[in-house]
Amino acid sequence: MTAQPAYVAPPHPPILLRETIDGGLAVLTLNRPAQRNSLSKDLIVELQAELDSIAHDDGIRVVVIAANGPAFCAGHDLKEITGHRADPDQGQACFARLMTACSAMMQAIVTLPKPVIAAVQGVATAAGCQLVASCDLAVASEKAAFATPGVDIGLFCSTPMVALSRNVARKQAMEMLLTGELVPAEAARQMGLINRVVGVGEERDAAIELGRSIARKSAHTLKTGKAAFYRQAEMSLADAYQFAAQVMTENLMSEDADEGIRAFIDKRAPVWKDR
Amino acid sequence: MTAQPAYVAPPHPPILLRETIDGGLAVLTLNRPAQRNSLSKDLIVELQAELDSIAHDDGIRVVVIAANGPAFCAGHDLKEITGHRADPDQGQACFARLMTACSAMMQAIVTLPKPVIAAVQGVATAAGCQLVASCDLAVASEKAAFATPGVDIGLFCSTPMVALSRNVARKQAMEMLLTGELVPAEAARQMGLINRVVGVGEERDAAIELGRSIARKSAHTLKTGKAAFYRQAEMSLADAYQFAAQVMTENLMSEDADEGIRAFIDKRAPVWKDR
Amino acid sequence: MTAQPAYVAPPHPPILLRETIDGGLAVLTLNRPAQRNSLSKDLIVELQAELDSIAHDDGIRVVVIAANGPAFCAGHDLKEITGHRADPDQGQACFARLMTACSAMMQAIVTLPKPVIAAVQGVATAAGCQLVASCDLAVASEKAAFATPGVDIGLFCSTPMVALSRNVARKQAMEMLLTGELVPAEAARQMGLINRVVGVGEERDAAIELGRSIARKSAHTLKTGKAAFYRQAEMSLADAYQFAAQVMTENLMSEDADEGIRAFIDKRAPVWKDR
Repeated sequence: MTAQPAYVAPPHPPILLRETIDGGLAVLTLNRPAQRNSLSKDLIVELQAELDSIAHDDGIRVVVIAANGPAFCAGHDLKEITGHRADPDQGQACFARLMTACSAMMQAIVTLPKPVIAAVQGVATAAGCQLVASCDLAVASEKAAFATPGVDIGLFCSTPMVALSRNVARKQAMEMLLTGELVPAEAARQMGLINRVVGVGEERDAAIELGRSIARKSAHTLKTGKAAFYRQAEMSLADAYQFAAQVMTENLMSEDADEGIRAFIDKRAPVWKDR
Repeated sequence: MTAQPAYVAPPHPPILLRETIDGGLAVLTLNRPAQRNSLSKDLIVELQAELDSIAHDDGIRVVVIAANGPAFCAGHDLKEITGHRADPDQGQACFARLMTACSAMMQAIVTLPKPVIAAVQGVATAAGCQLVASCDLAVASEKAAFATPGVDIGLFCSTPMVALSRNVARKQAMEMLLTGELVPAEAARQMGLINRVVGVGEERDAAIELGRSIARKSAHTLKTGKAAFYRQAEMSLADAYQFAAQVMTENLMSEDADEGIRAFIDKRAPVWKDR
Repeated sequence: MTAQPAYVAPPHPPILLRETIDGGLAVLTLNRPAQRNSLSKDLIVELQAELDSIAHDDGIRVVVIAANGPAFCAGHDLKEITGHRADPDQGQACFARLMTACSAMMQAIVTLPKPVIAAVQGVATAAGCQLVASCDLAVASEKAAFATPGVDIGLFCSTPMVALSRNVARKQAMEMLLTGELVPAEAARQMGLINRVVGVGEERDAAIELGRSIARKSAHTLKTGKAAFYRQAEMSLADAYQFAAQVMTENLMSEDADEGIRAFIDKRAPVWKDR
């Protein structure tokens, strides 16, 4: 009697790819191209898990967030949301958990002790635009575009605007939020929403190259500086200076600053302690 | 004996015109062209009254503020101010009331639960520039220009700068405030003070067209989003996310979000509940 | 017996030059060109002393900060810092004092009751970039450039970022801080870090000309407005309006506002009280 082959589930491609690249880079690639990389509950959970893991991974110095397919990220998964309308509470508890989880993940990018760079190959809308705005830096293809079109479906982009309004001028944010219209990459750069515009298909390499150049710096210094940046941004000028002067003093006492300054004076390349 | 005709006062044209336009728009037009639409006490009172009325008028979804004559608005009415120097207190109580009333009117634009769009056909200076800065969006003719020239008459544009400095970068605001010089429309757009520059004479239609496109969205969503925008702007990142996540959850529970998301999935136009 | 001439020390050129220019301007010129005008402890002390003196000098209405040599200012004096590594505490107390003194000097520019204009002829890096960002206005040569390259020597530009991040958009500040790369003058202008770009060698005259035009305004008004600007910038909208309305009322009661408004109505030049 011939044994039946065991049932093999059809392969589910992972929804988030993680690649480690020489030079201390992690590239996280959103991989739900058919769903325009919308942020399903599962994708948010996976992003959060990767960020948590990277936070404590000394081998990773810089993170790039990229995406597969034509769109960078279309925001929340509307079919998933609508599915929960059938819940006994019409989805309320589920929506609250989803928004809290998504907001926590966005803040995890900000609090990650390593720079995060978005590599935007296509359209980034709603929470997808928020994802770009939440990164420390962003490189985009000249074909990329950005919008917060929740207003068109009766769901104002209220969480995306938290990140958006901390990136661009008030009336520019309001125009995006009230009209839902797409902003092309070059206009987004002029606004301050992204840093660099590159040729189509070059955004991933450009983000990795930018990330590599940053990863060559002292990880201790990057960690100190990024954390201090976002903390001082919420302080009065006097408090910010008092805080930053302490940070500078502690930074000056570090081995990397000692080495970096000596190397600069000696006109040689520094050798960081933690590499 | 023939009856004498009763005395008829010469017609005073209204200083503020209100027009209702198909599609749920109110257009308020400053109508003191000979006084360059300066914000006399009476004009401030009328603007405040119209804004208060519109706030509770379900038929109005978007407001456009326009002006007649060559200037958009020249700020406060200096002759009126100087007239009060003859008051027993040299005008102090009057000036305090005027500044409080004007600041309240500007804030009424910000707190109005409907988007407000400035249509700027000419020069907007001092409190006139503040009026533009206080609107959610602004469309201007390429001949429009913006300045805060109070410094030239010994009266620094201190209330205008509250709105101005929340629209443009710090040094750009400082240059306008310290020099009083006019900023042309295109430079104002690049700074973030206005959204769009159009041909001479097209600003009113362009603002109405923009307003119409916004008025087609769910009024409930616009109200929710506009209020949340200005509230979160004054919070820390963590507080803003906690607040916005609640707003999103409540918004998701609304009928308009349910309808809007279903319509999006079904690839049809949504039918808002409150239209 | 012939008297020996007394020993005369070789002349040390002053590290900070102060010039008074017709029209109520003080020009402070950083004069350590061989050290790229780096902010040694002594130079910080001299800048602070001059700012303190100018604060109470009624003859000075506007300050220009310029520099001699190819660089505007290279930030802290790294050799001086490294020298203190030999201190019993490895320099900690010295570094803390240095950072506190430097932060106080930068804030003295902000709190000075007179406008301060940077005239940037060359590269402004780290605390040199902070110095430009701390001024109310900045004019730069088209050959000038700006960077916060501390990250390259293990010393994140944490105090410079306090000023930088209050001048430019978040991602633009982050790019400068994380990469350390030079931003050319024109890009810096578009970001809002500087106000005007002029031809090589014209920046000093352009800053003085700009300063003169501002110095012709009422000194009382400039003092009132500059102080109010930075105070209201840290307030909520409602608090800022309450504060600014008081400032405006007090300003209206001043002799210079009375004179300025009358002169405007009479179409004549105002004569300020304090000139």
